[in-house]
Amino acid sequence: MDIIEQVTEMAKRAKAASYILMNISTDLKNGALRAVAASLDKNRGEIKRRNALDIENGRKKNLTAAFLDRLMLDDSRIDAMIKSLNDVIALPDPAGEITSSVKRPNGMEVLKMRMPLGVVGIIFESRPNVCVEASSLTLKSGNSVILRGGSDAFNSNTCLGGLIREAIASAGLPADAVSVVATTDREAVGEMLKLKQYIDVIIPRGGKGLVDFVAENSRIPVIYHDAGVCHTYVDADCDIAMAVRVSVNAKAQRPSTCNSMETLLVNAAIAEKFLPAVEAELLKAKVSIKADESAMKYLKSAAPAVEEDFYREYNDYILNIKIVGTIDAAIAHINKYGSHHSDAIITSDALAAARFEKEVDSAAVFVNASTRLHDGFEFGLGAEMGISNQKLHVRGPMALKELTSEKYVVRGSGQIRG
Amino acid sequence: MDIIEQVTEMAKRAKAASYILMNISTDLKNGALRAVAASLDKNRGEIKRRNALDIENGRKKNLTAAFLDRLMLDDSRIDAMIKSLNDVIALPDPAGEITSSVKRPNGMEVLKMRMPLGVVGIIFESRPNVCVEASSLTLKSGNSVILRGGSDAFNSNTCLGGLIREAIASAGLPADAVSVVATTDREAVGEMLKLKQYIDVIIPRGGKGLVDFVAENSRIPVIYHDAGVCHTYVDADCDIAMAVRVSVNAKAQRPSTCNSMETLLVNAAIAEKFLPAVEAELLKAKVSIKADESAMKYLKSAAPAVEEDFYREYNDYILNIKIVGTIDAAIAHINKYGSHHSDAIITSDALAAARFEKEVDSAAVFVNASTRLHDGFEFGLGAEMGISNQKLHVRGPMALKELTSEKYVVRGSGQIRG
Repeated sequence: MDIIEQVTEMAKRAKAASYILMNISTDLKNGALRAVAASLDKNRGEIKRRNALDIENGRKKNLTAAFLDRLMLDDSRIDAMIKSLNDVIALPDPAGEITSSVKRPNGMEVLKMRMPLGVVGIIFESRPNVCVEASSLTLKSGNSVILRGGSDAFNSNTCLGGLIREAIASAGLPADAVSVVATTDREAVGEMLKLKQYIDVIIPRGGKGLVDFVAENSRIPVIYHDAGVCHTYVDADCDIAMAVRVSVNAKAQRPSTCNSMETLLVNAAIAEKFLPAVEAELLKAKVSIKADESAMKYLKSAAPAVEEDFYREYNDYILNIKIVGTIDAAIAHINKYGSHHSDAIITSDALAAARFEKEVDSAAVFVNASTRLHDGFEFGLGAEMGISNQKLHVRGPMALKELTSEKYVVRGSGQIRG
Repeated sequence: MDIIEQVTEMAKRAKAASYILMNISTDLKNGALRAVAASLDKNRGEIKRRNALDIENGRKKNLTAAFLDRLMLDDSRIDAMIKSLNDVIALPDPAGEITSSVKRPNGMEVLKMRMPLGVVGIIFESRPNVCVEASSLTLKSGNSVILRGGSDAFNSNTCLGGLIREAIASAGLPADAVSVVATTDREAVGEMLKLKQYIDVIIPRGGKGLVDFVAENSRIPVIYHDAGVCHTYVDADCDIAMAVRVSVNAKAQRPSTCNSMETLLVNAAIAEKFLPAVEAELLKAKVSIKADESAMKYLKSAAPAVEEDFYREYNDYILNIKIVGTIDAAIAHINKYGSHHSDAIITSDALAAARFEKEVDSAAVFVNASTRLHDGFEFGLGAEMGISNQKLHVRGPMALKELTSEKYVVRGSGQIRG
């Protein structure tokens, strides 16, 4: 079989498995996840041995230390994968849930029932943990998954994929509910993206190159977890100490994440008081500042910002600061330069808060809280596949429920259309 | 300006208008819809005059009588458009609704808020009524709309678009909330489909050629309202009179619609009793039958069906009939040959009903009711843009709520991430 036939056959089997999963009990699905956890624990040696091959290849290819670190599986990372499986076992099963029901005048009952999406295709880079985390969420919600990892994690991904398939089959689930595309051939991704009749949704997890490739080539609906160009707007009327604490957390608690702040917008009326205070704390946190002209005069360490800077996702200890005259200007800036991800206002003014909540067009809008809190666990949803900043199907954390959609079920007694 | 600049400029203005619409009161939106209704009533002469140009061009081009009928606007069709506006005015406004709220251990409140999608692009064929029906739904839900109709309805669409823009502007809404792409140039559609930064969703309404073109070329998420290859499965244990009545309604009440039945699946155990009974009624309704080999022996009028027939959407007085041994075979047939649209079971067996509900992978599943009931009005949702048979975002009728999605709003008191 050539690569096209292989991927097509895999997708066909995943689809068939998805129809079996639709009608499998929560107990059986949890049993399968327990079997995966037991297998990871039992096969630690094998996992580390296969992972070492990838690390060795990576060293030969001079991959960065940061990349090799993300690639590496040791006992503590295996523990973390086992913990993530147990976390998902503890979450409620969304599949089959009746979310609403109305009786119509003709006597028929119209219900909405939550159902798995079917087959989820995940295209991801470097971290092999994704194999376990993604398949635990897809299995629990009743979906099949096709995993296509980066070629640098080839040995780790095929090892984990093989263990998962074996474990779920031993627990009575179809092995084809989890597949790993076992090739480093890039053509396989292009093929996957065309298989609309078998794959229901594609989730790309990786850098801009991967996301752009998927966007250009997919004939399957895509759920994007894109760039996070996030803002905090400090309103004229606010608690300055809170504004400083929340801003510094949003920027510096973990700058590499998508929900970290990239631009701080400050109302002109409060700039003189707020900016020196926040600068002192930002400098302590090793953040370097780029500022627009009007903010420069209140800041002693800032370099001048150019317009392109306001579109950038630094993912680093760098922050743009800009002064705005009104809340309208702040909202307009966020909707124009932002990536519709996570944006916050710090204010004591209820009217300003209400306007910001409604008018900022982002997946999550925060009032008096750090954008870093945009997260499945923090929101009480449990584990997640990432944070969607698109508008259809799901905005924000993509957790178990978001791996389902609702179909209509109509219960009648012979109703016809007149 | 060339066509690319024109469409880009239109989309940019539509986006700007969408941000204004996000914060406009329900009263103001209803006032604008009333102004549109008044304008249609006042400008009947102008509408009919401009429509007559399209009809005349269509006659010259030898368009079919059915096509010309769909294109035609007379007083009763203008009345129907006015009625559809009043219907939408009476529906509740979904925008801004808080759909859930939880308090987290750190004291922050996590809410979900329903918000307009932003800019909706609608690409449609022939019926100019769509201009009014689609813009009433998008406006009421707080969205801007860009309408690109077929070139054969060019004069009608630009006339209606102009009247709508004038009317909503007179009521205080931005005119750019509704735009009609005023060109017959096909390139304009290709351009629209690339404007991801301004248009949030594309809804194609038309035949397979249009839908395939959009699927191949869109970089914007698409909501499909595709083919309806719908089924009714008559179970072994059922009320035969009900099965006959519901089946005949599903096929013959209005065969041109997407929720009409194309294939009747019959359990072998009931075939001898049911098939002659249903055939008699189908013949009265002028339906011609194609049947698989085993069904042929119970039917006097049937022609033999070939496998391809089971994939076809006849939209006509033609019906496939096939005998299946078990409910499993019925479900497998529907999931394989169907279009995941509307499928029914007729049964007295609660277990069979429950399995069919869960395992049939369609937007709407009916137990003891006609597939023809798959409709926004019948389900109590009011007017709709069509019926989605995709899985993401919306399955089934796309009504007002489905023109929104939910964003997170977090209300805090200085919470940060630890």
